[in-house]
Amino acid sequence: MKDELLTVLTVAEARERLAAHLPSELRRGEKLPLLQCLGRRLAAPVIAGENVPGFDRSTVDGYAVRAQDTFGASEGLPAFFTVTDEIPVGFAPDRELMPGEAMQIATGAMLPPGADAAVMVEHTEEAGQGAIEVLKPVGPGENVLRADEDIKAGDEVFPANHLLRSQDIGYLAALGELELEVVVPLSVGIVSTGDELVDPLKKPLPGQVRDINSYALFARTVELGGQPVIYGVVRDDPQLLREKLQRAYEECDLVVVSGGSSVGTRDHTADIIASLGQPGIVFHGMAIRPGKPTLGGVVEKKPVFGLPGHPAAALLSFELLVSPLLRFGSYQSIIHGAPPIKGIISRSIGSAPGREEYIFVKLQPRDGAIAAEPILGKSGLLTPLVEADGIMRIPLESEGVAAGSEVDVYLFGTDYVL
Amino acid sequence: MKDELLTVLTVAEARERLAAHLPSELRRGEKLPLLQCLGRRLAAPVIAGENVPGFDRSTVDGYAVRAQDTFGASEGLPAFFTVTDEIPVGFAPDRELMPGEAMQIATGAMLPPGADAAVMVEHTEEAGQGAIEVLKPVGPGENVLRADEDIKAGDEVFPANHLLRSQDIGYLAALGELELEVVVPLSVGIVSTGDELVDPLKKPLPGQVRDINSYALFARTVELGGQPVIYGVVRDDPQLLREKLQRAYEECDLVVVSGGSSVGTRDHTADIIASLGQPGIVFHGMAIRPGKPTLGGVVEKKPVFGLPGHPAAALLSFELLVSPLLRFGSYQSIIHGAPPIKGIISRSIGSAPGREEYIFVKLQPRDGAIAAEPILGKSGLLTPLVEADGIMRIPLESEGVAAGSEVDVYLFGTDYVL
Repeated sequence: MKDELLTVLTVAEARERLAAHLPSELRRGEKLPLLQCLGRRLAAPVIAGENVPGFDRSTVDGYAVRAQDTFGASEGLPAFFTVTDEIPVGFAPDRELMPGEAMQIATGAMLPPGADAAVMVEHTEEAGQGAIEVLKPVGPGENVLRADEDIKAGDEVFPANHLLRSQDIGYLAALGELELEVVVPLSVGIVSTGDELVDPLKKPLPGQVRDINSYALFARTVELGGQPVIYGVVRDDPQLLREKLQRAYEECDLVVVSGGSSVGTRDHTADIIASLGQPGIVFHGMAIRPGKPTLGGVVEKKPVFGLPGHPAAALLSFELLVSPLLRFGSYQSIIHGAPPIKGIISRSIGSAPGREEYIFVKLQPRDGAIAAEPILGKSGLLTPLVEADGIMRIPLESEGVAAGSEVDVYLFGTDYVL
Repeated sequence: MKDELLTVLTVAEARERLAAHLPSELRRGEKLPLLQCLGRRLAAPVIAGENVPGFDRSTVDGYAVRAQDTFGASEGLPAFFTVTDEIPVGFAPDRELMPGEAMQIATGAMLPPGADAAVMVEHTEEAGQGAIEVLKPVGPGENVLRADEDIKAGDEVFPANHLLRSQDIGYLAALGELELEVVVPLSVGIVSTGDELVDPLKKPLPGQVRDINSYALFARTVELGGQPVIYGVVRDDPQLLREKLQRAYEECDLVVVSGGSSVGTRDHTADIIASLGQPGIVFHGMAIRPGKPTLGGVVEKKPVFGLPGHPAAALLSFELLVSPLLRFGSYQSIIHGAPPIKGIISRSIGSAPGREEYIFVKLQPRDGAIAAEPILGKSGLLTPLVEADGIMRIPLESEGVAAGSEVDVYLFGTDYVL
């Protein structure tokens, strides 16, 4: 008991301790067609192979001209131009624009060589057959998108590990990047242990409850871009648990076992993780609530975690320890992602200095601000998890927050990292 | 031109106009195994079929007792109990607890009939073979999760259309809801038109650009839970465009065609949509920027939209008109989802009253608040779309926002509805 308390680590210390035994990148890359890359992360930076739009492009319907030919033009003293061609969109002009000449041009069409600006049709007047008058001068580059104004060949457009969103898919299509090197999802072996647990497919007998964590962690792994593998419920029997963990360890990139890490009567998880290989358990608890009885282990460079049995605690530990690995491949390269929402906490909450406290909150607009209502309740309840819109943290050294003060709420559904 | 200006509608009017011709629900349901339901929406409410945890459960390691037998107990005058049994987790106690008796109980184990509370082991002392003393009284229900305290059989746990998150999957597993009736994704036919556009797989010739919208709308449709079908690029030729739209219309639940709706030289989209069936085009433009040249159509109860060609404008129109249908099946049942983030706008932006203005913004922590930097630039640029963290709206009747004022930013990645 005393030894365990001594090795309770802060989240930062726990990550550091694990990182010391893990490779700097757990993940590898694979090539995929662009349309399959939504929600995936880049395994390498993308460098633009060409300019976009790729040619000087008119942003208006009007006339391509040499800007200097329009200087001084006004309604009283318009500049005269001979119209020598019409440039539709999608085609390259086949002649050069000479001084005093204009070419009719559509929005999105390519400027001819010699032209450096476009005049809006509204600022021109017809001046007989094949001629116009320009009533207002344009500067060089005006109403034109330069060939490399949107994207410049050679520029890094996305760094490695960028999470690809829908707008990014369009952007990469514009560059002709139709195959990308993306990160292969880490496979996560999920084991549940506890004599009271039954597979959710079965009807529990009196005293039994369905295994929730396997399903919740499966789904959270998918949300985070991982590849979950459910190994099912194992009785709290050292031999059976060892066999199951060994198999999950061999087949997956990382393993989580929930339920066996409570300081309770039948806790064999730590011994089994230790027996799988070196260095084994690297910490026996974290200074967080909920989630204190979390075991951190590394076996031959593969992370193996013992998560608490209570679903809220298991999900929180998973968020703090597994989520960074799924998203960044290591604890050193965490980028904190989506900023939290500012909420006004509706009641005071005390916290013991020396541990981080995580509170599920419900958000509601109130008086032009967002009220954050903590959802408290007995430990082990599931309902707070699904009623909440997000999660807030009371920092390590804080004694709590006073009602009415502003707190940071990490919104479920965003790409936040706690 | 004049007719078109007259039919420019606000977003609310456009949705109302469309709704008048659409069924109140465009989507249908299908049954799926729970583990495949992450990110899907419920087609029907879920009613709890049983209580959770399903039996009175101890939340501590200690002794199950009748609370009244502990009343008045103190360190000086402990209450004496005969220990008649030990209840491990996962098993139903096989005898009733009688007055003056206690049973040893583990966290999560089932209370025996007759017991109504649990005493923490820390508040007891051994009193010889098979007996304990209780040093502190407990009230009825103390340290116990009642059989229906977490979820009560018969309660609605999720309403129809609820978007299933990872924690919900665990919650439903707890209830044994291993098959759910979820919404079938609407199929979205995606057509691009424009003489300058080429399939992104091809190398553009001078004057040509790659079709971005097909890829961006494909990906956004997936993000929103829809089923995209790309019909490719069609030349700005009425006959070809009609054939393509007809096919997309017949094969999909709704159709978007981008690029042909600009008030330009070769705009046939409106005529073709009108020719597909009744009522055809219901509006010719929206009071938004970007995105004004958006066509709204309904053909025999199926929505058909003409989106602007510029990617930012196309994506915004899609967000305003298609996203609600994919998520809610109609415009009447929109729930506004994720609340926006409060940002401090870093520069003043003017807006014309009478239209909604949408600005892409980049967010950065600054002086304890979040600075929202508008990403402005020439129309048609792609880069603002990918540099932005979210989008802000200047309302219909506003003349703009002053630098330093607070604005609402809808964060990309959240389940917001504009």
